Amino acid sequence: MARSMDDPGYQAGLVDLLGLLSYGELQGFARLAADAAMADNLVDQAAMSAIAVNELRQFERLRDRLVEIGADPESAMTPFVRSIDEFHTSTAPSDWLEGLVKLYVGDGIAEDFYVEMADFVDDETAGLIRSVFKDRGQADFVVTTVREAIAEEPRVAGRLALWGRRLVGEALSQAQRVAAERDSLTELLVSGEGGLDLAGVGELFNRLTSRHAARMEALGLTP
Amino acid sequence: MARSMDDPGYQAGLVDLLGLLSYGELQGFARLAADAAMADNLVDQAAMSAIAVNELRQFERLRDRLVEIGADPESAMTPFVRSIDEFHTSTAPSDWLEGLVKLYVGDGIAEDFYVEMADFVDDETAGLIRSVFKDRGQADFVVTTVREAIAEEPRVAGRLALWGRRLVGEALSQAQRVAAERDSLTELLVSGEGGLDLAGVGELFNRLTSRHAARMEALGLTP
Repeated sequence: MARSMDDPGYQAGLVDLLGLLSYGELQGFARLAADAAMADNLVDQAAMSAIAVNELRQFERLRDRLVEIGADPESAMTPFVRSIDEFHTSTAPSDWLEGLVKLYVGDGIAEDFYVEMADFVDDETAGLIRSVFKDRGQADFVVTTVREAIAEEPRVAGRLALWGRRLVGEALSQAQRVAAERDSLTELLVSGEGGLDLAGVGELFNRLTSRHAARMEALGLTP
Repeated sequence: MARSMDDPGYQAGLVDLLGLLSYGELQGFARLAADAAMADNLVDQAAMSAIAVNELRQFERLRDRLVEIGADPESAMTPFVRSIDEFHTSTAPSDWLEGLVKLYVGDGIAEDFYVEMADFVDDETAGLIRSVFKDRGQADFVVTTVREAIAEEPRVAGRLALWGRRLVGEALSQAQRVAAERDSLTELLVSGEGGLDLAGVGELFNRLTSRHAARMEALGLTP
């Protein structure tokens, strides 16, 4: 899609998008690193810590792009601090399994959304977003661990399925607030030649939902 | 110093040392990453997060050395979980400034000790330890921030000086417990041709103390 930095509306939306993604990754790093300390064993703790480190690398690349386009990273991130912090406060895992599901399901839906957004930005930013969020293979150990826990104690599945639904509910509620408060961000999605109409928004929503359901099923949980 | 893996006493001491250092870095990562979220601004949060990431890299290199010498990293780390966790529980910073002093003063004294230990191990492990703990330049932003905070409100200095002394007190008390429980580790220091006598232990202690005092003074704090 041909989007130009000369268009101030586009520039404002892009700064908002990169600010949202940057702060999401920076805070995701802190939360994952802390959640890692709940691991049952030190091998899993090291594995989740390494995934946290990956989030900080993603943050650094997104922040560098903000600097490249002449924006101040701190000002760009500030509008999203409240929503993202509230998301994490309301979804603090109470044990290791909830932490694993949050990593797999919560980060999964966020990253799907980010990659969808790549369709609405300039080619260089799109390439960056797709490459930053490409590799989710590291989280594969989550599937094994959660499935083993359910095999050992089947009623765990009910509790974790509720937890997965709560994660999505909280994420949607914060996403709605962000959309309501930041017009420039919603403009990115709907304005111009390649912008979405109502049907397009519905399709986007369906794609996110069905990928979320596939992740829940991969974990052995009812979506 | 010529130390050989064929000596079972040496091997046991080395596994203990690497286990202690590894778990110290793994847990240091989690604590720093969480403390980073207390930063006053997002630039400082990113800076402390990057230092946390460095600790995880250090952990990975130390763990890999354990594997190289045929030890199981988890078993090697387990004996030190209680002491290191208790150190962090008893020194959880209550605000950003305390977090900065803990990073600079607490990590500083631990890393000085680790580098001293390099004199008592085989050359390959010594090289690894010296290279892992070489670069402390990243923490320089701490000095500026703490000094600015004191300039703005001088009575902060008294509180932080007490905090610095408490950090050292808690570290020493856990170090004593580790020394009492792990003979193989103390053997590393005192046995063999290059082992320390009582005067040597005293000199080591003096070196650690005077470097600690220099760090406190760099921050503008009475040691």
